[in-house]
Amino acid sequence: MPPPVFVCWRVDLMGIVDVGSKPILEREATATGFIRLSKEAISSVLNGESPKGDVREASTICVIQAVKETPRTLPHCHPIPIEGCNVEWEVLEEELHCKVTVRTHWTTGVEMEALCGVSAGLLCAWDMLKPIEKDENGQYPTVSIEGIRVLRKKKSHPQV
Amino acid sequence: MPPPVFVCWRVDLMGIVDVGSKPILEREATATGFIRLSKEAISSVLNGESPKGDVREASTICVIQAVKETPRTLPHCHPIPIEGCNVEWEVLEEELHCKVTVRTHWTTGVEMEALCGVSAGLLCAWDMLKPIEKDENGQYPTVSIEGIRVLRKKKSHPQV
Amino acid sequence: MPPPVFVCWRVDLMGIVDVGSKPILEREATATGFIRLSKEAISSVLNGESPKGDVREASTICVIQAVKETPRTLPHCHPIPIEGCNVEWEVLEEELHCKVTVRTHWTTGVEMEALCGVSAGLLCAWDMLKPIEKDENGQYPTVSIEGIRVLRKKKSHPQV
Amino acid sequence: MPPPVFVCWRVDLMGIVDVGSKPILEREATATGFIRLSKEAISSVLNGESPKGDVREASTICVIQAVKETPRTLPHCHPIPIEGCNVEWEVLEEELHCKVTVRTHWTTGVEMEALCGVSAGLLCAWDMLKPIEKDENGQYPTVSIEGIRVLRKKKSHPQV
Amino acid sequence: MPPPVFVCWRVDLMGIVDVGSKPILEREATATGFIRLSKEAISSVLNGESPKGDVREASTICVIQAVKETPRTLPHCHPIPIEGCNVEWEVLEEELHCKVTVRTHWTTGVEMEALCGVSAGLLCAWDMLKPIEKDENGQYPTVSIEGIRVLRKKKSHPQV
Amino acid sequence: MPPPVFVCWRVDLMGIVDVGSKPILEREATATGFIRLSKEAISSVLNGESPKGDVREASTICVIQAVKETPRTLPHCHPIPIEGCNVEWEVLEEELHCKVTVRTHWTTGVEMEALCGVSAGLLCAWDMLKPIEKDENGQYPTVSIEGIRVLRKKKSHPQV
Repeated sequence: MPPPVFVCWRVDLMGIVDVGSKPILEREATATGFIRLSKEAISSVLNGESPKGDVREASTICVIQAVKETPRTLPHCHPIPIEGCNVEWEVLEEELHCKVTVRTHWTTGVEMEALCGVSAGLLCAWDMLKPIEKDENGQYPTVSIEGIRVLRKKKSHPQV
Repeated sequence: MPPPVFVCWRVDLMGIVDVGSKPILEREATATGFIRLSKEAISSVLNGESPKGDVREASTICVIQAVKETPRTLPHCHPIPIEGCNVEWEVLEEELHCKVTVRTHWTTGVEMEALCGVSAGLLCAWDMLKPIEKDENGQYPTVSIEGIRVLRKKKSHPQV
Repeated sequence: MPPPVFVCWRVDLMGIVDVGSKPILEREATATGFIRLSKEAISSVLNGESPKGDVREASTICVIQAVKETPRTLPHCHPIPIEGCNVEWEVLEEELHCKVTVRTHWTTGVEMEALCGVSAGLLCAWDMLKPIEKDENGQYPTVSIEGIRVLRKKKSHPQV
Repeated sequence: MPPPVFVCWRVDLMGIVDVGSKPILEREATATGFIRLSKEAISSVLNGESPKGDVREASTICVIQAVKETPRTLPHCHPIPIEGCNVEWEVLEEELHCKVTVRTHWTTGVEMEALCGVSAGLLCAWDMLKPIEKDENGQYPTVSIEGIRVLRKKKSHPQV
Repeated sequence: MPPPVFVCWRVDLMGIVDVGSKPILEREATATGFIRLSKEAISSVLNGESPKGDVREASTICVIQAVKETPRTLPHCHPIPIEGCNVEWEVLEEELHCKVTVRTHWTTGVEMEALCGVSAGLLCAWDMLKPIEKDENGQYPTVSIEGIRVLRKKKSHPQV
Repeated sequence: MPPPVFVCWRVDLMGIVDVGSKPILEREATATGFIRLSKEAISSVLNGESPKGDVREASTICVIQAVKETPRTLPHCHPIPIEGCNVEWEVLEEELHCKVTVRTHWTTGVEMEALCGVSAGLLCAWDMLKPIEKDENGQYPTVSIEGIRVLRKKKSHPQV
């Protein structure tokens, strides 16, 4: 085989952005979102007895794991040593709200971690409430996940 | 150590619901959702040159991986041999829509897989567009993920 | 570079045993085990209010995930489409017992899946009860996991 | 849709405990446990030739991977940068003992990591010895995993 | 907010190719590759006593796990129920060869699984032999992985 | 059961090497490798329109994920907080080259991370180009992955 002729082309794709030169700060991010549910489903969340178990307890575990899994779910996220994760659920008449706060000391923020947690928690709730929400054709005409947002990000110098 | 006195209590938690007796059918589910973005971010999606690469290409990979990871993200989901996954992106003036269709032959539906795909794809887009969407305080006042829904589920007997 | 001289040696390592020629049967396995805990920890399990949440609910999620993760934890285990998983907790005066039943239709048994589930469930309980069980030196002199066994395996031809 | 009436209820679930304010110390934990095996299985461990390969070598790999996977197996565990992991096997007449020591510099202890390693290592040994231990009915009447304990935890200030 | 104006654009990205209509056949693929090593490293492989343990045993475990992880490593690969995996090592004077055969009954081939296995196995060998191969500047001028190929693929109708 | 007689044997297997006492330095490693492809496949890479999408974009995501997954793929690798990852593709007439640079501040080098990235990226390219490269018998007589090497490793004291 003859030595290949150089053809043309070179691309420098960025991969994950370099964060090594940024300072290690105390960082916190809070994200929120909600799922529209029927009153029957909401009551099943409230009494902790959905067809598949206690929705808040199971979905909280799901949030925590999704927070920690963020760099595997989102390609451009760096691995971050998560230090704390707080999960809060709020129930309206036909909405289940999830609020997730993530804390670390690191060179980069944790808003994607908080967002991943909220998304997974609401999806877990949906999954556990499927038998209640499914209509006679196996469809979910009234269920939806809405308002996934970053409530606030904070950073501050750690106490040395 | 004396034999422990039986105290009181027994709980039978359900774990994952048994699907072994349900028939293997051809199944398909389509989910959708969108992310509100600035015009600048939308234009960065359209020309394929966000600060972290081509948003649609990267987010499509992210969708596929999230679809396959569903039983690890959602505790009550069964492992399912995904056979096909189709990802469609649509751009409005200030919205990026993601539509994911998942197909399999199995005993249980794949709507959670499609929903997990949509969520991950939109989060990946957010993550790649952070440098554009972040305001001067590092906040995201206008970005949100909305309308994550199951468009339709279908099942039918496979051709034998 | 001259062609390398063949030296000596060839090993045929087995990798995972071939199960493709075995019939697909209905299979079930039940495993059990328990953790020795203090009375205070047991009472925290019973009232569902350990320092880190409801032990049974969280540990049940942990069992399910470990059952599904078995082929990643144990190198020689095949990927198996788990169809059902049942988790049962029993409380004695100073013992928390976990019983896990796994079901599938496949060519190979699911006892390792049930055993992985039991182990992970008991470790999760330990982890959640650490603040109660730790002595003043940060040690756990009285906690141990015991009696992890396969209670029974069954197989039978599926109804066609 | 009218604004939903606030119904009732708010729960603050803890997620993972905050460890960011604890000091970074040198930490080490050693856990142990054993599996009861037949003499035939023990001899297969000793000569390194079980039906599925060398039990100690494979199970040691399994221990290391389980130690690193701890935060994915146990929801409330933080990701920790494991620095060292030592695996020791001891053979009695009808028992295979596994001892695992894990080391790090971090804000939180590594006993759960050591315990996860021991559990996985013993389960891997069981899995590899199944063909020897299974009786004529496919049951394991004499095999069990016992005595999974934390031998000792240590922490000390790192040399600066 | 006024209804967004539809701008322009629609992309249908393929995701994973649909394999549901293809027949389930008995499939097998064999891949191979090798790593160039020093004589000292080869002898360390042969006697099973590298600085980090027995290279063949550990790398074989690594192959098996990589074979099973293929759909997580390669985005466009479907999850496949691997039924058998055979790992073979061959030692030349300055080369360690790895040959991996994967078997399943499924609708799609397993050559990527075999290739992933070979790559991971050779990388594991390199990692374990780093202390021997590293030169005084911490570089590896003579080590390389070469010739990763698919030796053969086979498919045939399973015996009904 | 009488106390078991101590038989014989004790092995101290190394697990992962202890890196806790090594200094935290700025570290960088670059690895490279290439895949031999047909002219048709190369042109499909160049125009970004392979049968399964844009090869460079998808394979770059695959590289990043493999870099971050290294401690799960290679048993003896420590978890490392990857700070930056740069992926470069170069196209010759019948070769696609991949170059990956990984950066961190840590106690141990990142050459295995860079090597894992290169391997996964080239395998992903192969997988996406299968429909073009497969001959009429479903074989790949001309495709191979070659020259996977560490180009250079660097370490230096971080700026304090």
